[in-house]
Amino acid sequence: MTRLDTDRIRAARRVIDPVFLDTPLYRCDALEPALGCAVSIKLETANPVRSFKARGTELVASRLAGTSSPAAVCASAGNLGQALAWSGRGRGLDVTVVASRFAPAAKLDRIRALDARLELVDGDFDTARERAAALARYEGIRLVEDSLDIETCEGAATIGLELVDSAPSFDAVLIALGGGALATGVGHVLKSFAPGVEVICVQPLGAPAMTRSWRQRRVVTTDSTDTIADGVAGRRPIQAVLDDLLLVADDAVLVQETSIIAGMRLLLEHAGLVVEPSAALGIAAILEDRDRFAGRHVVTIICGGNVDLPAYHRWTGAPPVHGP
Amino acid sequence: MTRLDTDRIRAARRVIDPVFLDTPLYRCDALEPALGCAVSIKLETANPVRSFKARGTELVASRLAGTSSPAAVCASAGNLGQALAWSGRGRGLDVTVVASRFAPAAKLDRIRALDARLELVDGDFDTARERAAALARYEGIRLVEDSLDIETCEGAATIGLELVDSAPSFDAVLIALGGGALATGVGHVLKSFAPGVEVICVQPLGAPAMTRSWRQRRVVTTDSTDTIADGVAGRRPIQAVLDDLLLVADDAVLVQETSIIAGMRLLLEHAGLVVEPSAALGIAAILEDRDRFAGRHVVTIICGGNVDLPAYHRWTGAPPVHGP
Repeated sequence: MTRLDTDRIRAARRVIDPVFLDTPLYRCDALEPALGCAVSIKLETANPVRSFKARGTELVASRLAGTSSPAAVCASAGNLGQALAWSGRGRGLDVTVVASRFAPAAKLDRIRALDARLELVDGDFDTARERAAALARYEGIRLVEDSLDIETCEGAATIGLELVDSAPSFDAVLIALGGGALATGVGHVLKSFAPGVEVICVQPLGAPAMTRSWRQRRVVTTDSTDTIADGVAGRRPIQAVLDDLLLVADDAVLVQETSIIAGMRLLLEHAGLVVEPSAALGIAAILEDRDRFAGRHVVTIICGGNVDLPAYHRWTGAPPVHGP
Repeated sequence: MTRLDTDRIRAARRVIDPVFLDTPLYRCDALEPALGCAVSIKLETANPVRSFKARGTELVASRLAGTSSPAAVCASAGNLGQALAWSGRGRGLDVTVVASRFAPAAKLDRIRALDARLELVDGDFDTARERAAALARYEGIRLVEDSLDIETCEGAATIGLELVDSAPSFDAVLIALGGGALATGVGHVLKSFAPGVEVICVQPLGAPAMTRSWRQRRVVTTDSTDTIADGVAGRRPIQAVLDDLLLVADDAVLVQETSIIAGMRLLLEHAGLVVEPSAALGIAAILEDRDRFAGRHVVTIICGGNVDLPAYHRWTGAPPVHGP
């Protein structure tokens, strides 16, 4: 049994602002000649924070809103912080986000614009996690830990409900793997209601800690990460999340940076979607193993679209946009 | 009274494939500093044909599907043809699309990929209209006339229902104006259920026929068009559509090409959306008249996202994407 509970996930739908729910799910024919399989898009970028993360922060913020001094701090690669800032702003929460100073500027700018306090650390996401934990202890406020805190997994799991409620005709779901909230949340629901659907997690070769942990069935950490997929670049998997992942994932695969970039290009050229690298992991996995997916119907969750445009243009082949 | 009927529009929702319904509607804070007003996006591009046109073609195709030799022909700037091809493919319809050979290649390629017969004419959209009408007469098949055929207006009007059902807090809706199906359909519903919301149609200065007609309250044609907004570039407004537009539009404004391009850039940079020029008309209208919208809450319908990427990159400031 995972830490997730289906009744709680269904209840979560009543708490989350509807603007984040019932996101588009559609076959994308135009991608299929390039990929050799049927592909459906589950699009999590057409909302005020351009990622799925607000599904979880809506739960966190709504529970905190009733307390006497509502405040929260989180470490974030950028999307969780933006989502927590959004959810907190509407509920009078005092939100602090700790992020790496190497996080995409677009994400950091949006966090500031949403009135959160932003603290930058000289280090990566796991450095930010330590700092956020210290801040929470010192200030006595709620620490929101992505993937460990059950709300972050339950929020992500509501995507799974939407997939199974669509009367799925698909054979596999490709899920970006970072801390594991998305994979364990969606995976839990799929295994409960559509056990025949393959749950495939995808992580960059340059940030393989959770995938290695899943394969070895124990937490494996790495000393560093090296990937453009900033949203999934963690070094220290959480045991409780790994335990859940072992129960719901059918596979975890690692993909190369060049495949992530090719995936971003395909999504731009054939689907008209601007996605961040983490959101192209599923397409990257198909590109690296066409035989596996040939003739099958695959869903890929487009989990975020927050990019620095100059980097995005570099990746997709065009130089930075200049002013008018 | 317009030609539209609210009961028929509500009934249309039960016929249209749900993949085209209940599209995202969300406040886009990130756009607001650049525009000086509150902006909500109604996003019609996250579906298999990347435009709102399938709402109408679903109605056309479902009615034709029961007939003895189901076939249809339409003239299209690209999006209607793609939508009719999609709706027809799923229902065994024989679809012919007549388009200008100057239509975006991406749109023409998608029409072909959806198994429609594509006939190109040496001329513009209105030349294609004549040819489609001739084909329909010659072959004795259904001619689908955008904006004139009530299904195309009713399909578009379902967007209006979604706007008013969202318990609108907005003051104005900005609607791309071409043939008029979108404007009359959405406008009819807004005037019926949210009469205080201003209905503002936006057309390019380079294709002003319908706006001039609306202002003069009679059909005014032009000899040519000169705009990158291919989706709204008609020269010959239809009297019956103009009659409806006169009843539901509060204003019709014309915008410059540079504003359309600036709008596309803003939507890319601050909303992460790749849109075709017609879909940037609303943002262009705000840019050209900030005082009018200052402090108000405006909805803009992002009606389509089918672009030729080389042209799109040229407009938004970056050169064409090159292969890996």
